[in-house]
This record gives sequence, structure tokens and C-alpha cells, in this order.
Amino acid sequence: MKLDPQWIAGFVDGEGCFHVGINSHSEMSTGFQVLPEFTVVQHKRDIALLYALKHFFGFGVVRSNHGDRMAYRVRDKSHLLEHIIPFFIKYPLNSKKHLDFLKFRKVLLMMKAGEHLTADGVKKIRRIAEQMNRCQLR
Amino acid sequence: MKLDPQWIAGFVDGEGCFHVGINSHSEMSTGFQVLPEFTVVQHKRDIALLYALKHFFGFGVVRSNHGDRMAYRVRDKSHLLEHIIPFFIKYPLNSKKHLDFLKFRKVLLMMKAGEHLTADGVKKIRRIAEQMNRCQLR
Repeated sequence: MKLDPQWIAGFVDGEGCFHVGINSHSEMSTGFQVLPEFTVVQHKRDIALLYALKHFFGFGVVRSNHGDRMAYRVRDKSHLLEHIIPFFIKYPLNSKKHLDFLKFRKVLLMMKAGEHLTADGVKKIRRIAEQMNRCQLR
Repeated sequence: MKLDPQWIAGFVDGEGCFHVGINSHSEMSTGFQVLPEFTVVQHKRDIALLYALKHFFGFGVVRSNHGDRMAYRVRDKSHLLEHIIPFFIKYPLNSKKHLDFLKFRKVLLMMKAGEHLTADGVKKIRRIAEQMNRCQLR
């Protein structure tokens, strides 16, 4: 299955999720770990579609999600910064999810500058993350 | 907002619905009315997207759905047969929703041939409609 980039933008507008998790982590100097991730969740009947996304981008993993749902997931920061973000700059989302994408991008640029390694940076990132729409698990 | 056809195919793969309703209808000779419809449901924050779809196709209506959801909806048989179906032949869906689309198309072609006006035709259409995935209201 060969995917068109505009098709991917449309599909992600509906089904994709840009999420910034902030977890307690005793080994980090700030006590917190910032975990941005891009996911696309589908019923397992469409697992081929998730593998087609993985093939298209050339990275990421396909994993089981909740119940009979599967997810394509990208967590690697350089994959997100150097590929996922430029992709959705070139093929923009049309829904309000675009606003979440811009916040996601902002957090990744802050992380690139090392801001997630300071208590103040984590606080700022948390404020941005809280303004993002929650992803629906379906 | 100008939509790309491939973007529309991707978005509909996630958010679109091809549905064939069969309602009791005393004025029809068969006692039933067959109602195919194409819908795209979104949270009201993305109502602009539904109007952009309406603008792209040049027909259909934007209506409130359940709760804070809105829907772009096409019920007109000639719009479905002459525009929506050829569109998704040219820009095919990649998910299993494509199978529902093919059943939807089959029903519309049966209706074009007048089969929905006979009891036997309604029975056949009902059998096809029952094999289609239910659309999730979100």
C-alpha cells in the first residue's frame, strides 16, 4: 500500500495524535521526563495501514493499544524533529489539531534547546501540554 | 480553506461514513424507503472543515449531529452517484472502509436500476447494508 502525503495529512487530521507526556522520573535532575509522541490509532483490522505509515516514514513502531486497537507510534526525538514536524509543515493539517501540532513543535524545539532539563523549562512545557487537546482513545 | 482531494480521501478514511438506512415508509409500494448517505462528523470546533468539504463538492448540508458534533451530509442520490462515488474511485480509501464504500456503491447502482422499488430488491439491499460496518458517532 503506497500512501500519498496529502492522504496522510488528511488521515492524521482525523486519526492522529500529538501528545506531550510528563512523567515523574527519579533519575532526571528535574524529577520529570518529557515524552513527546506522535501516534495514529486504528482498529486492528486496519493494521496494514499502520505498517504502511511506518514504511512511508521509515521509522516508528506498530504496537497494540487498548483492546482491539493498534497504534503506529513515533517517540524518537530526532525522528520527530527532523521528519514528522517538517512533514506536517509541508503538508499542513486543516483541522484544529494543527494548533496541537504547533504546540508539539514548540515543545520539541524547547527540548532541542535543552529547556526540558531545567525545572523552569519543565514548568513551561507542562503549561503548553495542558493546553493541548486530549487524544481520544477509540 | 482549500482542500486537496488526497487530503479529503485520507480524512474520510478516518472520519467519513457510508451508510445505507432502510426505514419503514407506508407510501412506498415495498413498505420501505432506502436512504443512502455519506457523512463526515466532527466536533463543532471544526465546523469550518465541514463547510470546506461542502464548498469542495458544491453540494450537501452541514447540520448538527449528536451533542457538540456537527456533520457534513450528502443524501441526494444523483450527487452520490455522479460525484461522491466517482471521487472515491479516483482517490481511493486505504482503510477497510473502502469495502463499505464498495457496498455503498453497489446499493446506489441497484437503486439507479430501480431495484429498491421491489420487495426482492429491498431484501437484497438490506442484506448488503447489514454487512457494512456501523459508523461510530463520536
